[in-house]
Amino acid sequence: MTTTTHLLPSWRPGPTRDSLVAFLDAASSLPPIERVAVFDNDGTLWCERPTPLQLDFFVDALVTAAAAEPSLRERPEYAAVLGGDHAAIATMGLERVGLALTELFAGMTPEQFDGAARAFMDTARHRTLGIPLRQTVYQPMLELLDELRRRDFTICIVSGGGTEFVRAISVDLYGVPPEAVVGTLIAYEFDRDDGGRPFLRRTSSLASAANEGAAKVNHIQSHLGRRPILGVGNSGGDREMMEWASAGDGPSLALLVDHDDAEREFEYVSTAATFADAEPIREVARRLGWTVVSMAQDWSTVFPDPA
Amino acid sequence: MTTTTHLLPSWRPGPTRDSLVAFLDAASSLPPIERVAVFDNDGTLWCERPTPLQLDFFVDALVTAAAAEPSLRERPEYAAVLGGDHAAIATMGLERVGLALTELFAGMTPEQFDGAARAFMDTARHRTLGIPLRQTVYQPMLELLDELRRRDFTICIVSGGGTEFVRAISVDLYGVPPEAVVGTLIAYEFDRDDGGRPFLRRTSSLASAANEGAAKVNHIQSHLGRRPILGVGNSGGDREMMEWASAGDGPSLALLVDHDDAEREFEYVSTAATFADAEPIREVARRLGWTVVSMAQDWSTVFPDPA
Repeated sequence: MTTTTHLLPSWRPGPTRDSLVAFLDAASSLPPIERVAVFDNDGTLWCERPTPLQLDFFVDALVTAAAAEPSLRERPEYAAVLGGDHAAIATMGLERVGLALTELFAGMTPEQFDGAARAFMDTARHRTLGIPLRQTVYQPMLELLDELRRRDFTICIVSGGGTEFVRAISVDLYGVPPEAVVGTLIAYEFDRDDGGRPFLRRTSSLASAANEGAAKVNHIQSHLGRRPILGVGNSGGDREMMEWASAGDGPSLALLVDHDDAEREFEYVSTAATFADAEPIREVARRLGWTVVSMAQDWSTVFPDPA
Repeated sequence: MTTTTHLLPSWRPGPTRDSLVAFLDAASSLPPIERVAVFDNDGTLWCERPTPLQLDFFVDALVTAAAAEPSLRERPEYAAVLGGDHAAIATMGLERVGLALTELFAGMTPEQFDGAARAFMDTARHRTLGIPLRQTVYQPMLELLDELRRRDFTICIVSGGGTEFVRAISVDLYGVPPEAVVGTLIAYEFDRDDGGRPFLRRTSSLASAANEGAAKVNHIQSHLGRRPILGVGNSGGDREMMEWASAGDGPSLALLVDHDDAEREFEYVSTAATFADAEPIREVARRLGWTVVSMAQDWSTVFPDPA
């Protein structure tokens, strides 16, 4: 397959881009059914700082709920979130706090939750970057998604975030349909209305393990039914998925986004909270020969131009 | 959209075909993201008599395993299956027997199980029809799948059968990729080999509820992230899924296959074992205004011509 200079225009020439293009060309020898790419979302396709953007949606809902029912402010998880008390949140654990926030949406149908998430995303702005949240997606990744589609890849978003929240943005932001989103899934209950018509109601329990680490591999197989050959991530929570994607026999690539661009985005060492004492992901990447994307050096543009 | 006489050639002219074509035309007014169709597999896309065809695969594996390890014959579930003792199977319950058979594959990687299922399907023949199992798919349904694809539908198989078994046949038989198969899922375990490389190993436990009845609705939302507008099934286990698909606000269709063709296939009243005391599905269809397909009257051909 011929690669032109127009390919991936926001990826600067260099070893990272060469490695990516070499993989794309090698993959074209495979039957399309084997061309499967998985992408983490937070910190890989869009910004995850200062906190994961889904938290903004939760906080927005909490503020509204607490205005109507002030006693909610007394619940420790909600008090910590409303007060921005990161130490208290860390002590309680993100899963406990996340599940408490999920309770705010319990009882909604899938359509109602989707509507709430879309309404939030229509107007929300990033807290420090001063741009709409919808615009904190990485332009080079949008180009990569487009190029993969041109090459008949099946693209799946494999996020630690809530499945239905990511689905509410995935079509508009990434061109990825809801069925290609695998995240942390909240269980539904089946019920019937007074007329006997069936509907689903959100609960506040996990349907399966939170989608981080080894659970990502498990959920990819459960959902996609085969091993991906391209794994793209940025944190310890993506490690197993990236190892699995790159451990097959044919062409494969593990692509790690390194957040080293304090000027245009954020500079931080990506870790998943639940993997805090694990080997730093940059070290894993070096040891296993992954391709590491330096945001500062490899990307000529970070965010898309405002349309 | 103009419908020609070449559309759905194996569907005989009449009210059933008219209803189906009217739905297809109405659906073309919807955005493609809303064009979602779900199909049951056993008895809907292919034959399920005298017993679900996946059971043949299990029995084949059991015979092989019992030859190597004769003590397996003493296990009650295996003895009942090997002896064709339907009464004993019914007493123990299909789920218990199915899970016991699933143990035969515990420890396999997804690729190994896929290989075993494909190897079986390559040569297996139907026990009474005398044709290859691969050929017991319904020609009119293959035409409907093709027509839906032409109209940009997302097609999903929602089967009570094993997810990974159906995935092993879905591409070749139906043109449906593995990620669009939702069935009864056996859980995987994540592990690493001696070299530290990750892999998945089948267990013999359900990852989620067996995919029948209300669980089908739950799993469709979990997997597809939206409500289908076409629900096609044949048994009590498909009832909730078909009700859900046809309870939306826009164009929708619930299409029930009635097995009334003793001459070319089988004549039986479709029931799911777990729903034996529920309202017969034909009655549900009549009450809710579903479109009922008479295999004897509405289909000019049942099975495809041998290629």
